[in-house]
Amino acid sequence: MSDHTIPGVGADGRITLAHGGGGTAMRALIDGVFLRAFSDDPAAPQEDQARFAMADLAALGDRLAFTTDSFVVDPLEFPGGDIGTLAVCGTVNDLAVGGARPVALSAAFILAEGLDLAVVRRIAASMAACARAAGVRIVTGDTKVVPRGACDGLFVTTTGIGVIRPGCAISIASGRPGDVVIVNGMLGDHGAAILCARGDLALDVTLGSDCAPLNGLTEALLDAVPDVRCMRDATRGGLAGVLTELAEASLVTVRIDEAALPVRPEVAGVCEILGLDPLYLANEGKLAAVVPAAAADVALAAMRAHPLGRDAAVIGRLETAAPGRSAVHLANRFGGQRVVSMPSGEQLPRIC
Amino acid sequence: MSDHTIPGVGADGRITLAHGGGGTAMRALIDGVFLRAFSDDPAAPQEDQARFAMADLAALGDRLAFTTDSFVVDPLEFPGGDIGTLAVCGTVNDLAVGGARPVALSAAFILAEGLDLAVVRRIAASMAACARAAGVRIVTGDTKVVPRGACDGLFVTTTGIGVIRPGCAISIASGRPGDVVIVNGMLGDHGAAILCARGDLALDVTLGSDCAPLNGLTEALLDAVPDVRCMRDATRGGLAGVLTELAEASLVTVRIDEAALPVRPEVAGVCEILGLDPLYLANEGKLAAVVPAAAADVALAAMRAHPLGRDAAVIGRLETAAPGRSAVHLANRFGGQRVVSMPSGEQLPRIC
Repeated sequence: MSDHTIPGVGADGRITLAHGGGGTAMRALIDGVFLRAFSDDPAAPQEDQARFAMADLAALGDRLAFTTDSFVVDPLEFPGGDIGTLAVCGTVNDLAVGGARPVALSAAFILAEGLDLAVVRRIAASMAACARAAGVRIVTGDTKVVPRGACDGLFVTTTGIGVIRPGCAISIASGRPGDVVIVNGMLGDHGAAILCARGDLALDVTLGSDCAPLNGLTEALLDAVPDVRCMRDATRGGLAGVLTELAEASLVTVRIDEAALPVRPEVAGVCEILGLDPLYLANEGKLAAVVPAAAADVALAAMRAHPLGRDAAVIGRLETAAPGRSAVHLANRFGGQRVVSMPSGEQLPRIC
Repeated sequence: MSDHTIPGVGADGRITLAHGGGGTAMRALIDGVFLRAFSDDPAAPQEDQARFAMADLAALGDRLAFTTDSFVVDPLEFPGGDIGTLAVCGTVNDLAVGGARPVALSAAFILAEGLDLAVVRRIAASMAACARAAGVRIVTGDTKVVPRGACDGLFVTTTGIGVIRPGCAISIASGRPGDVVIVNGMLGDHGAAILCARGDLALDVTLGSDCAPLNGLTEALLDAVPDVRCMRDATRGGLAGVLTELAEASLVTVRIDEAALPVRPEVAGVCEILGLDPLYLANEGKLAAVVPAAAADVALAAMRAHPLGRDAAVIGRLETAAPGRSAVHLANRFGGQRVVSMPSGEQLPRIC
């Protein structure tokens, strides 16, 4: 179906308020763009809900996981991904780092009147491709259109359900003194890519977002090390956000080694120029895993054997903290020590 | 916690970009407003996902239902509700009309920089109250903040999971010739209320939205009439939208009687003045149920016994349609007939 056969889209190929009105124009947009991209059976009667046999879910594990995120990234498209891949990866990863196998996603779109339909098509296509790569289906959704000026282009909210494997007891509060912290690769790529893509920094660097679904990697890690204590994806707030939460929730000191942090020279360069710290930059395909020290080598090997974990590295260790003194300590390259504080505000608005 | 003790909120009590940054200001907003309103245990470690024992879900039924909606209503607050009650009711109702018992909701907020924190608090409080009334918990969420001008106040996306009772086979495609169509009460209240609340029509009428969670009503109906064919809540696109979808999916003619449609005189008056049709006005607490003719009296009695079904009425009947001739026919008060077409565009932008 070409853009022109979707009622409500004019010769200029742009979204109109009619596409959010609950009538024929909206149906045409959903059928012609979203169902066409996401559904195995676009002609099936459209119910307002997706359904799953409980027996099929129970065959995957003993607990259901449920998570949601809105995405408002600016620009909508950037090297390495777009708002759609970000949304699919973000929700898949929130499920995966909790030990869940992602089963299905919903996708709710808020579109601005005047948005180019071709952009919507590209974003839907990349969401579909990303979902396929993650082995997850986009099964239900919603479309709203707001007048020009009431929303900046396109926002999408993805919600995911997944099933947690039996016996898996991952929690941000489960870190123990002696455990090691591993990351699966280069830090800060997404934040640096968005910064460069905004184009107002006159940086002559093209960096790609690390946006990727991590469920294959987390499955491999859990297969190798069933007693992983905790995993978290290091999105907004970066690795600093994850580690400060870990220290607080697990009542430990997290001691990390700056020299061990994997950071691309280009990202380090961008950070140096702009006075940013890669520890606080957002990632969209990076996680921190906490594992018992005895399992560190096995965990590292399992991660490195996966394409998304080739640069995995042990970056630190958990230690006993005096009551009320949980914190993250960083040993810098010159032998000094500093406390890594929780990010306070917004380094980069609309990073995801 | 007063507004002033939430970091990032100035003396003017307004949201700043820091509240979406993934750091301490965002944590404070989530802890001080959202968890305070929604959580039984606000001090528990914050995981990025909510979890449910599969055995508890399986005890409720044999299928999981999953549905999502974004809400962009303007104004945010109106007689009879606000964007928060709308979001909770909308998602609860999408689950309920599929025969599911709602179990849990997620809530993802997109806030504009400069939004009054007091508004956010009020909306969170009414979501919590509405969720309590519906017997459902808000278990996970997300908060993004976009710069002034990139979003018009506050958008919220709610996603729900529920469990469908065994044997329930409700579908928009299940209507059969001979079945009757029942609505649970007055039509068009929400659409008319929003129109009046916008204040640019100089109408001297105050109408309240009918915004309400319908799961109690649907449970009562399904208890009385287990073989309900189909239920749909008549939101965007109004009853006309639901009935035209029903005719198309079930391959039937839907014949309705204008004189039988329950419409408040005030709503009929607003429609007359503005040239609108109550059939197309949005509802947020109204559903159409299709039941076998033999069960019509029992269904009607069950609905009328419920506070949200006191004005329930049989409004029409399904008839055999010649192939390709499915449609909705309305018999008007003067003995005439007209075809009710699917809504095409947007009568009232940002109605939900």
